[in-house]
Parts: sequence; C-alpha cells; structure tokens
Amino acid sequence: MESSTQTKFPLVVIIGAGFGGLRVAKGLEDQPVDVLMLDKHNYHVFQPLLYQVATGSLEAESIAFSIRKNFSDQKNFRFRIAEVTGVDTEAQTLDTTIGDIKYDYLVIATGSTTNFFGNKQIEKFAMPMKSIPEALNLRYLILQNLESAVLEKSKEAREPYLNFVLVGAGPTGVELAGALAELRNHVLARDYPELKREDMRVYLVDFLPKVLGPMSDEASAKAKDFLVKMGVDVLLNVKVESYDGEVIKFEDGRTIITRNVIWSAGVMGVVPKGVPETEILRGNKIKTDNISRIAGLDNVFAIGDVAAVIDEETPKGHPGVAQVAIQQGDLVAKNIINIMNGAPTKPFKYNDKGSLATIGRNKAVADLGKIKFQGFFAWLVWMFVHLISLLGFRNKVVVFVNWISSYVNNNGGTRLILRRFVREDVPKDAENLPNTES
Amino acid sequence: MESSTQTKFPLVVIIGAGFGGLRVAKGLEDQPVDVLMLDKHNYHVFQPLLYQVATGSLEAESIAFSIRKNFSDQKNFRFRIAEVTGVDTEAQTLDTTIGDIKYDYLVIATGSTTNFFGNKQIEKFAMPMKSIPEALNLRYLILQNLESAVLEKSKEAREPYLNFVLVGAGPTGVELAGALAELRNHVLARDYPELKREDMRVYLVDFLPKVLGPMSDEASAKAKDFLVKMGVDVLLNVKVESYDGEVIKFEDGRTIITRNVIWSAGVMGVVPKGVPETEILRGNKIKTDNISRIAGLDNVFAIGDVAAVIDEETPKGHPGVAQVAIQQGDLVAKNIINIMNGAPTKPFKYNDKGSLATIGRNKAVADLGKIKFQGFFAWLVWMFVHLISLLGFRNKVVVFVNWISSYVNNNGGTRLILRRFVREDVPKDAENLPNTES
Repeated sequence: MESSTQTKFPLVVIIGAGFGGLRVAKGLEDQPVDVLMLDKHNYHVFQPLLYQVATGSLEAESIAFSIRKNFSDQKNFRFRIAEVTGVDTEAQTLDTTIGDIKYDYLVIATGSTTNFFGNKQIEKFAMPMKSIPEALNLRYLILQNLESAVLEKSKEAREPYLNFVLVGAGPTGVELAGALAELRNHVLARDYPELKREDMRVYLVDFLPKVLGPMSDEASAKAKDFLVKMGVDVLLNVKVESYDGEVIKFEDGRTIITRNVIWSAGVMGVVPKGVPETEILRGNKIKTDNISRIAGLDNVFAIGDVAAVIDEETPKGHPGVAQVAIQQGDLVAKNIINIMNGAPTKPFKYNDKGSLATIGRNKAVADLGKIKFQGFFAWLVWMFVHLISLLGFRNKVVVFVNWISSYVNNNGGTRLILRRFVREDVPKDAENLPNTES
Repeated sequence: MESSTQTKFPLVVIIGAGFGGLRVAKGLEDQPVDVLMLDKHNYHVFQPLLYQVATGSLEAESIAFSIRKNFSDQKNFRFRIAEVTGVDTEAQTLDTTIGDIKYDYLVIATGSTTNFFGNKQIEKFAMPMKSIPEALNLRYLILQNLESAVLEKSKEAREPYLNFVLVGAGPTGVELAGALAELRNHVLARDYPELKREDMRVYLVDFLPKVLGPMSDEASAKAKDFLVKMGVDVLLNVKVESYDGEVIKFEDGRTIITRNVIWSAGVMGVVPKGVPETEILRGNKIKTDNISRIAGLDNVFAIGDVAAVIDEETPKGHPGVAQVAIQQGDLVAKNIINIMNGAPTKPFKYNDKGSLATIGRNKAVADLGKIKFQGFFAWLVWMFVHLISLLGFRNKVVVFVNWISSYVNNNGGTRLILRRFVREDVPKDAENLPNTES
C-alpha cells in the first residue's frame, strides 16, 4: 500500500494539480495534516494560455510549472505521478496506477476534458486542446499542414491544408481564431513565400447566436467585430453534423474541405470510478453541497470543473473557470481544518471577478462587474492579469519576453515541429514515446 | 518533380540545416542562384546546449530556431521538410520523401549521429543525445526514474533508478555529468524529500586516460578535478563490454546496476545513399579536397561533421566542431560563386578559435590558443560565447533569463515530463506522435 504518511496526522489526498488542487495543498501548509497530491503529470498547467502553445507562440514550459518545485518548501506535502483508477468511499481507499492509497480526507480536483457529445467520428478526427500534449499535437498538425500546402501546386490541392475550422466560439475558440488569423495576416506570406494570405481561411463555428456566450452582449459583439475585421469567417447558429477527416458537414447543408478541425465546443468532468452515480450530473459534474462535499460522504470533496455546488442560488452550479476552482480550493482547505477541530464550516460564496478574452494584438474584451470595456486597454489588462497569475518568476519573464518580441517584430513564436504528428496507428497509451530517434 | 526554382538561375540544394548548412545559404544571399534547403526538421538546433534540454534546465524552443523564420527575408531561399533517400550524381538528382529534386550544385551538410560501434544491444538500451527529440527522451527518462525511485522503499530497490552512467568523457559527457551532479547536490533532496543526495550516483566513463581528450592537459586535469569535487565518479581507461538495460559491464569485470546509461562515446557521419563508397572514410566521413568538394564530382560539396578535408596538413581531417562547419559553409558559398564566375577557388584553412567546456556553476575550462584558463572566468566566457552564438534575440534573452534564475535560486530548470517515455514497443517511425491524448 503506497502511502506517504510519515506522521500520525490524518492524510489529505488531492487528486489533480489544477488551479483548485494547488490551492487546497497550499491552504493546508503548516496544518496538522499530511498532504498527498496525485496527478498524471508532474506539472501544473496554466490553461488560459494553452492556445498560445498550440499556435507556437509560447513554449510549453512557460505555461507549466513543476509541482515538486512549487511545493519544495512545504514540509507536509508529498507528490506522486499516478492515475486514480477507482475510489472506494467505504474503505476510504483509492485504486491507483502506483497501488492502493488510504485517505482520511479526499479532494477530487480532476478538472474537465473535451466533450464530443458521443460523436465517435468527430472525436477521432477533430483536435481537442485541453492538455499540453494535446496543444503540442495541434501545433504540429497546423505547421505540418502548412508544409504540406507548400508542396501542392494548385490552389484546390492546398485548400484542405489551409482551411481551419474552429468549432465552439467560447474563449478557447475565439482566442485560437484570433491567433490563427494573425498567423495568416502577418506570418504566412513571410515564412511561406509559396503561399498567399488569401489561400488560408479561418472559420469560427458555433450553434449559439453569439461568440463568447457567457460574456456580456457588448463583449460578444465587439469580439465578433474584431474577428471579422481580422478576416475570420464567423458562422453562428450553425450545428456540426459530421467530420470524416476531410470534409466537415453542417446541419444547414454547408460543407468545408479541411484537415484542420479544432473542437472546443464543450467540456465534461473527469470523474473517478467509484463516485456514487446518483451524485453525477449532466456533463459529468459531481453534485456537492455548499462546502463542496459529496452528499453522504463526510470526508470527500469535489471542486473546480469536475464539481457543481447545487443549491437554490446556483441551481446549475458555477461557471467552469479558474476563479471558481481557486476559491473553492481555498475554502475546502479551511473547512477540512474546521471539521478536524469540530468548528463550524463556511459555505462557498463565489466572488466573480469578471472575465476577459483576447482576440489578438491590441484587441481584447473585458467584463469586470458593471465595468465593460474592449480594445487596447482591455488587452493590457488581459496581459497583466495573465502574467501575474502565472506560477514562477521565470515563467512570468519568459512569457513577457515572448510577448514583447512577438509585438515588436510582428512575427513572434518559435513554430517548431519537435515531433511529427500522425493521425494513423495510435499506440495504446497516447502519452508514450518511442525510445529511439532518428 | 519537386523543385522551387522560380528563375533561370542555377539551383543550389543544401541538405541539412546545421551550422554549416545555414552559412552556405546565408552566404548565397543576393547571389544569382536559387537556394533550396532540405532538413527533416523545420528548425536549426544549437547543439552545444542540448545537454541542458536533457537535464530540464532549458526548453527545447530556446536552443532551436525556425529555419523559415531565419530566412524569411532572403528572396532566393526556399525550404522543404524532407529526408534524402538517395543521391544520383550522374543525373544530378536527389530521391527524397517529397519527390525527386534536380540540383545544379549540391551541398551535403547532414552532420553526424551517435556511433554505437555496431553494438546493437547497447544501441537498444543506452540513450543517445544528438537531436532535440533524443534530448527530450533523455530528460523524461531521467525524471521518470527519479519518480520511480521515490516509490521504492529500500535503498537497494532505488539504486538502478539513481545510478547514472555516462559513457564518453568528451564535452557532452562532461557537461552532462556536471549538470546531473548539480541536480543531485542542489535539487534532489529539495524536490524529492523521500530521497537522499547520497542515494544518487553519477559515473563518467571513458576508455581514454583523460576527460575532454582533445583539450589541453591543464583543461582535462582541471575538469576532472571539478567533477570529482562535485561528487562524480570518473572512471578512466575503462571500456564498456555490455549493457542489457539493467546492468552495465566493463571489460575489467566491474559492473553497475543502472537504468540510466547515456552514450556519447562517439559519432559517425550521416551519409546519403549514392555518395561514392570509395570516398567514405572511417566514421562515415566523406573525403573531400581542400574546397570541400568530393573527388570527381565538380558540383557536390560536403562540409561539417559528415566531411573530412584530407590533405598533407590534415591527414585525419578537422575536429567535429561547429567552427569547422561554419567556416567551411562560408567558404563553400564563396567558392560556388567563384566556380560560376570561372574565378579561382580559395582553399580551406581552419582558424581554430579554441575550445570551451563547462562543468557547472562557476566552473568551466578554456583553451584559447596559447591562453589556457579555468574556473569562474572561463565559465563567464563560456556563457557569453554561447549566448551570442544563439540564433535570435528572443532565444538569447530566454536562455539568459533561465540561467539567471537557475543561478540565483540554485534550483533552476522546469523539469517537466511532457510525455511519458517508454522503452518498450517502439513504433516504426520514432518521431511520430499519437493523435489522441488522455
């Protein structure tokens, strides 16, 4: 039985090193508990900037941070790379890829993954972008298709490589569309003299009537306006019917020939096996009370994207954003201590700090409570907020340097194909690597 | 037939975007030729810093540079991602993975790869480090083995994961040994509280009686001295007999249990099929005359690690270092123009600017002609020379920031396992990636 308890203190096991999980662990520093964090990766990912890894403007290392390094000064913290294959809430144990682990308190902070709504064909051919390996795969696909386009003689033959269809006009879709439009407008003709700017097209598709659904109408309208001015084809009220790797079909009969379909149309929680089925809601969210606890389980909590606090105020839970996970993480840490001390627990009240989305150079939209603004200042705020939120001084500086150099020479990004990406013959474990290299 | 000639100018095809290839292309800027560069990757690699990618102190993107971006202002330059499968010097064509290419002048600048001297078993289990994917694989192996060590309860069980054996005490072996020793001395106990510094051991093995063979005796002696003080076991006059993935055996009967064997004991040229066998020397180097031309072929040149200028002054050719490739690249560009103009060609004279090697923080050795010095100042010179040699302002700054932050908090590096590395079941194309991601 794997366990890192070196003391007689109760063991708090945290599954997932996302925004929420990190805050629970930090919140338990210097408390009379042992903390064991499990994650399939040895790093925390700053998801809001993933799309810049996908477009090659940032290196993966600048938006990820070593979990061990982050907690190297926290005495009661231990970390293991592990995947949780099952939860036994009776025996209070976890089945994991590194053996069974007994917990006293469990925090499920496993986040969410891409939701293809059961469409296996689209899942096979469309590109998701929820993890660093996924973002890197997407980067390689985009760059490889530009290289393939260069080899084709006719405009028709280049089309499938140079049409980019982004399904889902949430922040991810909007920011990717903007980044691809800038690649087209500023980089394409310079780096690929064989290609013309007009040859590349970027489509942003959503079944809703607006982009950035959850944001204000001003923000949505302005974001769409920015995108259109940048040359993005924004297709709203459009539902995807199928994608076979070559042609994407919409329910209104329209089709686009493309080898680049990026799917950010929905997410679903990553719920470990063993969580009571009765407590799992639509979109794989775990229903919790207002202290993020699963009904009937005194010592099991769920926070962030995988959870939904359901009460009269929030019948549908909270939005799947970092701030919710962060605030729930802070509170769960406090409440675990309260419970241990027999003190009353504090209920969760979400403090919405507003939302930001960037479309491109000097272009962003901001809803900060009643204050709504768009354009250059919103873009500065967006950059500032993201820089200070990044873990680690080094990452802040490296990202800043990348952004400056992109801004100055308008040809930012390293755009390296570090490994070739192929759709065919997928090994069992998608994260595995070969041990040889030519 | 793939060809990028848009003009009536002769086509110079350059195979390889290493130090030499880049200089040939730049040297032909604004000349009445078309330049087509072929490489299997879309980036140039700054090899001298590869070992820092392997130890997780630098991200791959900072030591690589986009070939297209680098030449985006050179009108007569074209680039293709391609592998050359054969050269037909009669028909003056190349067989490549993107079709046949006809050349008027050919420059073979394909560099070198790891030489296992025919030992298939060692080749299967030891880690090479000549490319970015290889350096990343090595990083993942090292970090995964530290994670595996954490899971083991006994010192004996941890041993195979914590013994590191570096075969070959050239610059690569010495710099890796130093970097691993610093990981052990400064990072291990902090990031892995379950492990003790003494548990990790770093061995540097060479069959020669000295480290940094080609350098001065002062440099070699001081480098060894530095390594020993840092806790590296330096085993000289020792030949490797076998390595089966678990135990490395030496000819003197000694054995070490280890899952980390890194092989930098030799290199060999990467010679395209079709180069006359008679002109290929030991270690797969192509024999050339003093203008880097292959005997009997008026329009085919070979430079850098894959070539050897053989004449009375250099019966064994020149050392396999960047400076030789760079100077040969500059000269070949000039001589191609001279040949086109019927002007006399200039013979190659190697201007040896000396050599540097770093062992660690404040520790390096320098042989600059007659001037030989070691220690802190040599280390500053090493950093300065490598920074200014890096392509791109962004890379210079990012690497500098990394080094500063490493120096200040003595716990540098991101050390992320972006993809799991497995020895077993190697896919056919080692560079391919799966298209899904869990």
